[in-house]
Amino acid sequence: MKFNIALLAGDGIGPEVINEAVKVSDAIAKKFNHEITWTPALTGACAIDAVGVPYPDETHEICMKADAVLFGAIGHPKYDNDPSAPIRPEQGLLLMRKKLGLFANVRPTFTFPSLIDNSPLKRERIEGTDLVFLRELTGGIYFGEKGRKDDGETAFDTCTYTRAEVQRLAKKGFELAMTRTKKLCCVDKANVMETSRLWRETVQAMEKDYPEVTVSYEFVDAVAMRLVQWPNSYDVLITENLFGDILTDEASVISGSMGLMPSASVGEHTSLYEPIHGSYPQATGLNIANPLATVLSAAMMFEDAFGLKEEAEAIRAVVNKSLEQGIVTEDLASKDSKAYKTSEVGDWLVANL
Amino acid sequence: MKFNIALLAGDGIGPEVINEAVKVSDAIAKKFNHEITWTPALTGACAIDAVGVPYPDETHEICMKADAVLFGAIGHPKYDNDPSAPIRPEQGLLLMRKKLGLFANVRPTFTFPSLIDNSPLKRERIEGTDLVFLRELTGGIYFGEKGRKDDGETAFDTCTYTRAEVQRLAKKGFELAMTRTKKLCCVDKANVMETSRLWRETVQAMEKDYPEVTVSYEFVDAVAMRLVQWPNSYDVLITENLFGDILTDEASVISGSMGLMPSASVGEHTSLYEPIHGSYPQATGLNIANPLATVLSAAMMFEDAFGLKEEAEAIRAVVNKSLEQGIVTEDLASKDSKAYKTSEVGDWLVANL
Ligand SMILES: CC(C)[C@H](C(=O)O)[C@@H](O)C(=O)O
Ligand SMILES: CC(C)[C@H](C(=O)O)[C@@H](O)C(=O)O
Repeated sequence: MKFNIALLAGDGIGPEVINEAVKVSDAIAKKFNHEITWTPALTGACAIDAVGVPYPDETHEICMKADAVLFGAIGHPKYDNDPSAPIRPEQGLLLMRKKLGLFANVRPTFTFPSLIDNSPLKRERIEGTDLVFLRELTGGIYFGEKGRKDDGETAFDTCTYTRAEVQRLAKKGFELAMTRTKKLCCVDKANVMETSRLWRETVQAMEKDYPEVTVSYEFVDAVAMRLVQWPNSYDVLITENLFGDILTDEASVISGSMGLMPSASVGEHTSLYEPIHGSYPQATGLNIANPLATVLSAAMMFEDAFGLKEEAEAIRAVVNKSLEQGIVTEDLASKDSKAYKTSEVGDWLVANL
Repeated sequence: MKFNIALLAGDGIGPEVINEAVKVSDAIAKKFNHEITWTPALTGACAIDAVGVPYPDETHEICMKADAVLFGAIGHPKYDNDPSAPIRPEQGLLLMRKKLGLFANVRPTFTFPSLIDNSPLKRERIEGTDLVFLRELTGGIYFGEKGRKDDGETAFDTCTYTRAEVQRLAKKGFELAMTRTKKLCCVDKANVMETSRLWRETVQAMEKDYPEVTVSYEFVDAVAMRLVQWPNSYDVLITENLFGDILTDEASVISGSMGLMPSASVGEHTSLYEPIHGSYPQATGLNIANPLATVLSAAMMFEDAFGLKEEAEAIRAVVNKSLEQGIVTEDLASKDSKAYKTSEVGDWLVANL
């Protein structure tokens, strides 16, 4: 098969981790007889520096034409201290999500046996954790009307959802649940928010189409608790944009493998794969960043965007092997063992595929 | 001194835990020569059953006249499955907060040495944790305009804040920080929300009035992570209503002592003290619920509402003693030790004050 992948390396360690994911993807393509064309494009702080906007039209064109997008990370400290500055890398992210129609952010949280002891949680609390959040990504308070009134003394943000938006996300949730343990949790704040009541009634109405799926409805505050207490009691969770932002980040630290967590944002036009970690500016250019989350994001891309499960499994298998054999960057290296460089980990993965 | 305390026992285990807090408070009053008049009033499901509304006017009058309100818990399973039902116990809670002007919810999270091993987190992660959330409680998306459009196909909720609302809450935060380690964290989503930008600029402008306080600004998703990773890195945190709802609940499970956590809601007219746990319907009437969170809420009341620090310390000391000696309800009893009844714990506290 032939694929055209848009390559958005972004800022900070983005280019370094992307580089290793490209190496591994090319090696997999070679092994399984596929042909990948990579089309690099600018986004984030580097795009602001180059052309004055964080998500240039040219980048958008490239993404629209691509079979998938592989994304590194964006953000630069020079934009950190003033969230009201008119141009910021994150705006590029939001614009990209909206323009590409990336409505479903897929965020798995799972454990690696060899890394369980890195978790802040006790082993018995996280063993067996394997959950997936589906976060709605193009609606809610992120994109509703917002502004000031009364000479700037009053600020407002509007959270809006349509039934169709909820259905589109929930459908993905039911379908995903059907491929797993058939448990779906709808996370809302229906005791307070009207949008949450719309979410709940919409999901309730869809239950009859998926009789095998057991659906539970939980308030966001209760989920924030249970995620820390019994993360392994969850399977698929669906939720709106802002709750998803908070809860997926909370979930990402419980496994002890945050540096390894991949994600996908699935859209109308294309889909995008990225590590959940940030641009880690302090490590930029040092060849020390952990490339595994990006490599595993590439695996998700092979499986979900291209339907190539065997290729994805081959990537995951070699990643597991590298972890077991301690071929890891400094964030995962134990006190007395060697820390490998970013590129050395990539080289090892390619050699051992 | 003489105090008039409104007693809102509420539903479920509310009356049982309130009963023990009253016993302990009366014993303290006797010991220190104070006189307490308790005025019971209905709220929650029991108020709906009795008079058709969850926060009757009569209850409001009683609270307005009181020096403080001691609150148990509300909620009943018969109202659980339909968050859009027209009359629900939680609406009483929201109405009460609004009508009493309880704008600042004070939620400490701290550890008890003897309970640290109950935490889902590893000991080294939570040792030394002693933080306080100040959650804004009468504004934001809870009380903004909400409704449906397009024949019910579109729902919306509005989050609104005025500068004055932010200042009022932030002032409490700065003042509290001054009595502690002088570290204040403002939690917002200023990279996305206009209300958050108002929060941030308002708090930034207040910094100059508290030159000794070190203020940090963190996004809500980052705090959701760091609370699980390094809870002991926080001291005082201020935030808006919905973020506070989620984060205070998340914080409550990290210490391993959730059943013991007290809280206060401070207002314009009076202030209210309550355990953070719910009405625990399954345990109703069994005399097994843990009364310590309510007893510790009474301690907060003595200290903060009445300025009686010694009385508060005496209550805390006897609670600590009961924990050390294992005079605890079944939720805290170890496998081979006796579980005491709710009322037995209260009796023991009174006898050992
Ligand atoms: C950078 C920010 C706007 C973004 C969000 O809130 O969606 C980020 O936190 C994320 O989750 O991808
Ligand atoms: C019951 C509910 C409306 C309430 C809230 O969201 O404020 C509760 O979760 C709380 O935190 O006291």
